[in-house]
Amino acid sequence: MNALLTDLYQLTMAAGYWSAGKAGETATFELFVRRLPANRNYLIAAGLAQAAEYLLSLRFEEEEIRYLQGLPQFQRAEPGFFEALRRFRFTGDVFAVPEGTPVFAGEPLLAVRAPLMEAQIPETYLLSMVGFQTMIATKAARMVDASGGRAVVEFGTRRAHSPMAGLYAARAAFIGGCAGTSNVLAGMRFGIPVFGTAAHSWVQSFPTEREAFERLQALLGEGTTYLIDTYDTLEGARQAVALGKPFWGVRLDSGNLIELSHAVRRILDEGGCRDAKIMATGDLNEYKILELMAAGAPIDAFGVGTELATSMDAPSHGAVYKMVEHDSPLGRRYTAKFSADKATLPGAKQVFRFRDRDMIGRAHECPSADAEALLRPLILRGELVTPLPSAAEARERGRRSIEALPKKLRTLFEVDPPYRIDLSEELIQLAGEVRARR
Amino acid sequence: MNALLTDLYQLTMAAGYWSAGKAGETATFELFVRRLPANRNYLIAAGLAQAAEYLLSLRFEEEEIRYLQGLPQFQRAEPGFFEALRRFRFTGDVFAVPEGTPVFAGEPLLAVRAPLMEAQIPETYLLSMVGFQTMIATKAARMVDASGGRAVVEFGTRRAHSPMAGLYAARAAFIGGCAGTSNVLAGMRFGIPVFGTAAHSWVQSFPTEREAFERLQALLGEGTTYLIDTYDTLEGARQAVALGKPFWGVRLDSGNLIELSHAVRRILDEGGCRDAKIMATGDLNEYKILELMAAGAPIDAFGVGTELATSMDAPSHGAVYKMVEHDSPLGRRYTAKFSADKATLPGAKQVFRFRDRDMIGRAHECPSADAEALLRPLILRGELVTPLPSAAEARERGRRSIEALPKKLRTLFEVDPPYRIDLSEELIQLAGEVRARR
Repeated sequence: MNALLTDLYQLTMAAGYWSAGKAGETATFELFVRRLPANRNYLIAAGLAQAAEYLLSLRFEEEEIRYLQGLPQFQRAEPGFFEALRRFRFTGDVFAVPEGTPVFAGEPLLAVRAPLMEAQIPETYLLSMVGFQTMIATKAARMVDASGGRAVVEFGTRRAHSPMAGLYAARAAFIGGCAGTSNVLAGMRFGIPVFGTAAHSWVQSFPTEREAFERLQALLGEGTTYLIDTYDTLEGARQAVALGKPFWGVRLDSGNLIELSHAVRRILDEGGCRDAKIMATGDLNEYKILELMAAGAPIDAFGVGTELATSMDAPSHGAVYKMVEHDSPLGRRYTAKFSADKATLPGAKQVFRFRDRDMIGRAHECPSADAEALLRPLILRGELVTPLPSAAEARERGRRSIEALPKKLRTLFEVDPPYRIDLSEELIQLAGEVRARR
Repeated sequence: MNALLTDLYQLTMAAGYWSAGKAGETATFELFVRRLPANRNYLIAAGLAQAAEYLLSLRFEEEEIRYLQGLPQFQRAEPGFFEALRRFRFTGDVFAVPEGTPVFAGEPLLAVRAPLMEAQIPETYLLSMVGFQTMIATKAARMVDASGGRAVVEFGTRRAHSPMAGLYAARAAFIGGCAGTSNVLAGMRFGIPVFGTAAHSWVQSFPTEREAFERLQALLGEGTTYLIDTYDTLEGARQAVALGKPFWGVRLDSGNLIELSHAVRRILDEGGCRDAKIMATGDLNEYKILELMAAGAPIDAFGVGTELATSMDAPSHGAVYKMVEHDSPLGRRYTAKFSADKATLPGAKQVFRFRDRDMIGRAHECPSADAEALLRPLILRGELVTPLPSAAEARERGRRSIEALPKKLRTLFEVDPPYRIDLSEELIQLAGEVRARR
């Protein structure tokens, strides 16, 4: 399943490790971001369930192996390598931070300890899936925070980077706190609540707006949300009132949302529809939501598309997957980079969360009873040892853990100083030793 | 196949059209972008092959229909609607601009003329797939242009918005002019040349850089590209020279690429490896490539990841899919929007390309022999009538048509005035009539 959905060099390196007799040497790789994107003070971990599913189902099909055998890069590869691909199973260990947990720069979200070949091949897929979902969950959390608890619904599949990106964006946005999604497959596959209203084309396809509204109400009853800006927003609101209950509310998709929401609210209230809600859509982001909230716009729900599903202001978090330990017949080596802009720390790690700070230490450390160890066993010897959380469980963890964050981190702008991250004495000592040895 | 990979409202509207007896009324929808993103003077159409494949294979599985039947939004839907989903086939017509063709704001890339229900449901998928691939093909064309004909290879799957986005980014980047991709599945599925080098972890996993290089050379022979910056770039280059032929070249992934490429070139030349090439990678984009080229850096190939696969500076092109014509028992209606920021033009269209300008006219027009009509029949009555182009054919069309563009458009910055787009007399007249009738 998707075994070739990786970079070629992962597979040529695998062939090289096999030839060198190193494919079975154990290595540990860690997935993390080097620095937080602009204006973010934390990330929300997401995508780890799909990472686990991928590792557990990773197989090479005969057709895929034949394709590789035909490539010039594999002309010198030994036949035994292709046999190894045929038998390929992920047999290693995976430690992961539970989805929905806030994480910070330098903290591993995922650690893979496995035979070198098995740890190398998944790099591309893991980075893409975990990096993307973490980015979207983080963006969603910002929007939900800005909305002051009003419902934020993910409507972005049409602008996502391919339809399948829309599917995973819907999942990640839900984990980040969205109330649901318009993506029906995400509803079916992940149990996420699905929402929708109607399009301008719906209104346009009936002779009158009134008939379009009547038909929608007949179908959706108290779930009906009229899109009222196709012709004239205020007239649309009056039509909704004239039809009367049942309906959920109306959607504004253009114009000055502050002025229009007040005017529409008045029409709804004066028409006896005090229960009717107002949803706003149209290129919204966390800053525009903040402005609407600050202006006291009577908006009950936000539908967010492009900006959320593409993480428009930070479309990459630049996650990396780095080897930190390697056991060979020469013994254990701890690996790190010390270049100024791409520095990494050696050795398998653990992240300890205290009430008001984190400490990154070595994997075997056990600093004190009041710290929570964030990286937990997910897969051991190729077997799942912790049930994968549902999207709803991950969302609930997200909600609780975002609420537990120091209040100052929950701004849409960068705080200085950032969240406190210490390194343990043992980790500092190891880094010093590795550096001295070079 | 992927029938639920759409927004809920497409399906509730379909149910509503069915109830209203309108599901079979013919409508025409057009897919286009309202305006070009910053610094772009054209877009390269891509993703249309996948759009066609989707429409031709769109089916509702029993499990999917059952899921819909369980949703509150479908509690009032008539049983006949679910029967209609069971029998669902796309039976309409599709007209498309061939992949690889430059297009401009307001010009339809795709037109769907089909029964209302069949035209509505695919909106989300088509926007996402065509919008994304067009965005990436365009970004790739900019990088290829900036490189002055040197090879640009797509390395971005790890930073793409989900692994599947990486697959389609690889295809679109190739259509936009890239020499190939690191994505192996894209190689197998689309026949795109695949390339790769080695990672820092490869070098780190051997006791010495020399041994890592020897092993790579043994595997890859004349295709070998050494990653030389793991420890010390110049020392890495000396190691490559010491090992001697065969090898393709070396890769620089950090540091000052202008200075390093000159220094490494000297080492290679003085060591008798004048044929050896230098590839540069590391957060490159079209502007950085331009700078390297302007500085005369002796770089033979560029590997581009994050910035290409996410279209970092413009991660959405905001493509829209708008109803422009609708036949009902009341007759034909031409639909349009006239709001200042979201204006659209009514009626099914054709794009006519003259040597130095385009004209958008009505679909039936036939202005003159020296104009090329860009929208061509792809699917008629649900049957493919034109073979889907291979990625290589689309790339070749892209190459020729980008070369045919007025030279001033091929800058990385916005030109003023932009490419000339006229509207035909007939289209202007229709728009006036539709506006007057409102």
